[in-house]
Amino acid sequence: MPETSHSRARGNLLGQLPKRVDVYEVGPRDGLQNELRTLPTRDKARLINALVEAGEKRIEVTSFVSPKWIPQLADAEELLRLVGRREGVVFSALVPNLKGLERAKEAGLEEAAVFISASEAHSKKNINKSIAEAMAGAREVTTAALQAGMRVRGYLSTVWGCPYEGHVPVERVVDICRHLVDAGIYQLSLGDTIGVGTPRQTEEILDALLKHIPVEKLALHLHDTRGTALANSLVGLSAGVTTFDASIGGLGGCPYAPGAAGNLATEDAVFMFHGMGVETGINLDRLVEAGEIAQELIGRKLAGKFLQAALGEREKKASRRAQT
Amino acid sequence: MPETSHSRARGNLLGQLPKRVDVYEVGPRDGLQNELRTLPTRDKARLINALVEAGEKRIEVTSFVSPKWIPQLADAEELLRLVGRREGVVFSALVPNLKGLERAKEAGLEEAAVFISASEAHSKKNINKSIAEAMAGAREVTTAALQAGMRVRGYLSTVWGCPYEGHVPVERVVDICRHLVDAGIYQLSLGDTIGVGTPRQTEEILDALLKHIPVEKLALHLHDTRGTALANSLVGLSAGVTTFDASIGGLGGCPYAPGAAGNLATEDAVFMFHGMGVETGINLDRLVEAGEIAQELIGRKLAGKFLQAALGEREKKASRRAQT
Repeated sequence: MPETSHSRARGNLLGQLPKRVDVYEVGPRDGLQNELRTLPTRDKARLINALVEAGEKRIEVTSFVSPKWIPQLADAEELLRLVGRREGVVFSALVPNLKGLERAKEAGLEEAAVFISASEAHSKKNINKSIAEAMAGAREVTTAALQAGMRVRGYLSTVWGCPYEGHVPVERVVDICRHLVDAGIYQLSLGDTIGVGTPRQTEEILDALLKHIPVEKLALHLHDTRGTALANSLVGLSAGVTTFDASIGGLGGCPYAPGAAGNLATEDAVFMFHGMGVETGINLDRLVEAGEIAQELIGRKLAGKFLQAALGEREKKASRRAQT
Repeated sequence: MPETSHSRARGNLLGQLPKRVDVYEVGPRDGLQNELRTLPTRDKARLINALVEAGEKRIEVTSFVSPKWIPQLADAEELLRLVGRREGVVFSALVPNLKGLERAKEAGLEEAAVFISASEAHSKKNINKSIAEAMAGAREVTTAALQAGMRVRGYLSTVWGCPYEGHVPVERVVDICRHLVDAGIYQLSLGDTIGVGTPRQTEEILDALLKHIPVEKLALHLHDTRGTALANSLVGLSAGVTTFDASIGGLGGCPYAPGAAGNLATEDAVFMFHGMGVETGINLDRLVEAGEIAQELIGRKLAGKFLQAALGEREKKASRRAQT
């Protein structure tokens, strides 16, 4: 049969998707550090336990940053002690410098994350370093962390756009990524820090990167500020990306990027993946329970749509039972 | 160069997208009929005017349904009089039966919309008719509306799933669509009434329909209840669909479907389309102004993410100005 104008749509659009993906949970760190309310350590541990109960296997729990910078995360050591070790689960933490790494080693951290902005202006405002300085610092931390037996992950922020510079050239992103891979980083998490990305741009960014970096090394860290996180995830999934950062209930944003709000909600991502036959190993009902705990602890409704739909449905059922 | 495992991702995923799409605005009808607060007619007209000012060209403004069923829309005639005619803009209304059509004719309506559920149980609960009865009724209204010189659009609800039946067979959807096209309907709007759709399913539904119906006749009416409306839109766009129903700020849902909330927000759709180089003719800043009016009139924050991000940014700028 000859190709028709519709034949591309029929089955070729999404193509073969990965059978399974990992969700990398960033709620306890990226999420909570952006909340006004600082939680007691035992409450953070309670949330993390709920995420583990839901089947999450990769959870960034805190940051070994100076408490002067982010007082919300000053209890990193205590929190790691409290959550302990869980079979098959890797707890990671952000490690901004060698001082932080010493603390992380003492605390027995298994996986460290380093952080670089792809925008010169954002890097200056965020960590008061040029990109070159940040790259040197990340290499230093990575080398030391690898020597200490840790696995190291790299965050690359403002890849889709910067609140100060606007457009960020993809060539710069490629350069930084190659540098980080050379340094020994096992995975690069590409961040749409202010949530301005759209699917064609996501395709272009992945297109440029996949010429130099194997897809297994890439993760997407998408913000849902303008509602496009799942559409962008779909492009990543189609390109073979198998790790997606997400935050329970959509907790958190970026404190240094004006207007930034809303990590992709873990439940929304898991709902979409499961609906497409892409396994995550996560139990969606249990995830809703964890989202409910997150709401209770921070004292406000979260933006995650699946969470609100699930809680709304439960309320309706309860009110129908009460009426009969 | 031989094909590599990454070559599919490089440029073939999204392929050629339509250069321009239509947004079919359903906020004033689908949105407002689901709000608890009934607006005065002049407020509805104010909202519709703001949508026209933003560049919207296809707006469903009301329904000629019995006021006993939906008292919020009892002012259909007065509203059409108040909004008048606008150059290049088509105002449409839902017309459930011949009695409604008589009123629509009197009011000088240009475009009528008929409504059929793809789920037997939903059809019974929603309009107290079987699908067969609803199809007969839709044909009757369509024939009479065409004779009266109107254009007729058809809504097909619960295509992605039903709150009572669960799975809805796509063959049934195809049958109903063919019936409606035979009856003379110019466009079919496929509804994910309860917002349970995921992209693979969207691809399958379009795949099945496009074997029988030209893509120009299809529109997508997606709900964002679980956050997947834009990801599903992206699949539609890739398949060549060029009309997307959306509601200003995400106003409304489906009153008969438990747990349903949240039409796709017009601004979220327009932001994604423009970001991909797909024109809509709509001014996004003006759309935010219309969203603000919608919030003011109904007295609560709407769920649209772009809207909230834009309003949040403006507040931040204002507070920085106040500080300096």
